[in-house]
Amino acid sequence: MSLPPPLLAVSLGDPAGIGPEVVAKAWDSRHALGLPPFVAVGDPRSLSEVWDGPVVVLSNPAEAIDAFEHGLPLLAVPAAAASLPGQPTTAGAHCSLDSLELAVGLTRSGTCAGVVTGPVAKHQLYAIGFNHPGQTEFVAERCGVSSGNVAMMLAGPTLRTVPVTTHLPLRDVPERLTSALIEARGRVTLRGLQRNFGIANPRLAVAGFNPHAGENGALGSEERDVIEPAIAALRAEGWDVTGPHPADTMFHTAARARYDAALCMYHDQALIPLKALHFEEGVNMTLGLPIVRTSPDHGTAFDIAGQDRADPRAMAAAIRMAASCAQHRALHG
Amino acid sequence: MSLPPPLLAVSLGDPAGIGPEVVAKAWDSRHALGLPPFVAVGDPRSLSEVWDGPVVVLSNPAEAIDAFEHGLPLLAVPAAAASLPGQPTTAGAHCSLDSLELAVGLTRSGTCAGVVTGPVAKHQLYAIGFNHPGQTEFVAERCGVSSGNVAMMLAGPTLRTVPVTTHLPLRDVPERLTSALIEARGRVTLRGLQRNFGIANPRLAVAGFNPHAGENGALGSEERDVIEPAIAALRAEGWDVTGPHPADTMFHTAARARYDAALCMYHDQALIPLKALHFEEGVNMTLGLPIVRTSPDHGTAFDIAGQDRADPRAMAAAIRMAASCAQHRALHG
Repeated sequence: MSLPPPLLAVSLGDPAGIGPEVVAKAWDSRHALGLPPFVAVGDPRSLSEVWDGPVVVLSNPAEAIDAFEHGLPLLAVPAAAASLPGQPTTAGAHCSLDSLELAVGLTRSGTCAGVVTGPVAKHQLYAIGFNHPGQTEFVAERCGVSSGNVAMMLAGPTLRTVPVTTHLPLRDVPERLTSALIEARGRVTLRGLQRNFGIANPRLAVAGFNPHAGENGALGSEERDVIEPAIAALRAEGWDVTGPHPADTMFHTAARARYDAALCMYHDQALIPLKALHFEEGVNMTLGLPIVRTSPDHGTAFDIAGQDRADPRAMAAAIRMAASCAQHRALHG
Repeated sequence: MSLPPPLLAVSLGDPAGIGPEVVAKAWDSRHALGLPPFVAVGDPRSLSEVWDGPVVVLSNPAEAIDAFEHGLPLLAVPAAAASLPGQPTTAGAHCSLDSLELAVGLTRSGTCAGVVTGPVAKHQLYAIGFNHPGQTEFVAERCGVSSGNVAMMLAGPTLRTVPVTTHLPLRDVPERLTSALIEARGRVTLRGLQRNFGIANPRLAVAGFNPHAGENGALGSEERDVIEPAIAALRAEGWDVTGPHPADTMFHTAARARYDAALCMYHDQALIPLKALHFEEGVNMTLGLPIVRTSPDHGTAFDIAGQDRADPRAMAAAIRMAASCAQHRALHG
C-alpha cells in the first residue's frame, strides 16, 4: 500500500535564531537528505536575511506539495518588525509563537501530517507572557493532553532515550522520582514506539539511578524502592521491560542493540549518551500526543546566527522522522 | 633518545575470573596489538585451565624480556588450591591479593616500570579481611599516598574522564562535593596529564552537576557555590581549566577535541560517555601515585570465565597505556 507523501508543517522558530537557516539549508539539500515535502511557517524576512534561495509564499498549504520542487513553500507569519540574525526581539518572540500556533493548528486539523518545530528563545517567550516551560507543554495543551502524560524522546540513528525527569536540579530528582511517574513515562514510551515507529513488541530498558544501579542497595535505594516496582507493574501488563540496568553499561553498541528505547531517570543520563553518539543529528520527539511532533535537538544558537555556520542535519533528521512516524500512524492507525 | 622497552608487571586478578584468559590472549596477539614485554603474576593453573599456549615460569623477572618472545613469562603465585573458571574461592582471593602485592612491589622497587592489575572479586577479598574499597586504595596505601590524593582516570582512544566522587548513592553526591575536593582531583588530573602523557599544558574541562550546568542558578546551585570556586582556584595557579560545562554537550567529537581530560562530578557522568564511546577498550588508570598503575575497565566476569568469550582489548589497552606512561615518566622525569 502506498500513500501520498505526507506534508509536514515546519515552524521557523525565533526569526533571529538559526531556525530559518537550517530549514532553508534542509530544503537546499532535500534530494541528498531524502526529505519529504514540507511547508515552512514564519516571517519571510527571516529567510531572506540568511538565504537567497527561492521562497514560494502560499496562501493555501495544499499547494505546498507541488511548489516544493520549485522553492521553499512558506506560510507567511510576518513579525511586527523584522529581526536581524543574532538579535532577538519581542516582535520576533511573538512571531515565533504565532508560527508555532499556526503549524500546530494545521497539524491538528489534518492539513499537515506532522509538525516540526524550530528553536525558540524561552526567555523571550516568558517575557511576552508565555506560561509553559517550553514548546512541548504548549503543543500538549493545544492538543488537550496533560503535560504529565507526554514524554520527551531524544532519538538518534542508533539510540532513543526518554528522561523521566527533565529540567530540575539533580539533587531534587530523588524526591520527584516515583513509581507512578516512571510507570507513566514507560507506558507512554512503549505505546509511542508502537504507534510512531511500528514496533509491535517494543523493548524498554530502564536505567538505574545510582552507580551500578545501586549494587543491591549498597549504593542507593531508589532502584529497590521506586524503579523496580514500576518495572514490575509494566511487565504485569505484558510489556517487554528490563532493568534497572547500571547506566554506564547501557549505551555501548552491543547493549543498544538489546532495546528500542532507554528510560532514563534524569536529564543528563538521557542526554549525555545521546549527544555523545549522535550530536549532529539528535531529534526531540514528543510522545503521547494525538499528532506527530518533532524538533531538532538544538537551540536558537543566536551566537552563530546569520554566519552560514549552522548545521542543518538535526533539522533534516527531525523532518525525516516526523514523516516516517506520520506514515506509520497512517498505515497502522 | 631511545630507551629499552619497559617491562611491565601484570597481575592476573582472581584466578576464577577472566583475568588469566585476557592476559593470555593479549600475549597471543602481542604483535598485532603492539604490546611491550610484560611478566604475568599469578597462579599457573589459572592459565592452563583456559589456555594451552606456552608459559615460561621465571624465578627472576629480569629474564622476562628475553622470554617474552617464546612464551608468556610468569612469576608463579600458587594458590593454596586451584580454582575452576567461574567458581571463585577463598584460596583464589588470597592468591589474587598476593599477586597484586608482588606486582606492586616489583614496580615500587623499580624492577618493573609499571603495574597492570587484573580484575579481582571485591566481595571475596572483603571476606578474607581486605579492608580497602578496591585495588586502587590498596596500591595507594602501599605507595604511601592517601587515597584522597589519587584520582581514578577512565581513558579510551578519544576521551579521558575523571570522576570527583565515585561509589556512593547519587543523592549523597551534593553533600560530598566540595570546592576543596574538586580542586584536589583537578590538580591530580592536571599533573597526571603532564607526567604520564607528556602534555605540557594540559586542558581540563570541568562538568557541571545539574542539567544545563544549572542554567545560571535556575536549575541548581552547585555550579555557583562549589564548582566555580574550584575552577577559579585552579586557574589562579595557571592551569588551563574551563567550565562548568553542561555535561550533555561535552562529549561529542568536536567538544572532546577541546580538552585533554573531563573532570566529572559523579560516577555515571564520567562512565556513561566513556563506555558509550569506548566500551571495549576502556582503561582505568590511577593518577597521583609514584608508580604507573593501569587496569582494564571491566570486572572478573565470572559468568563467562572459561568459555573463551572474554575480549582482551581492554587488557591490551591497559598494557599499552602503562608502557606509554612509563616511557613518558622515564623521558621527562
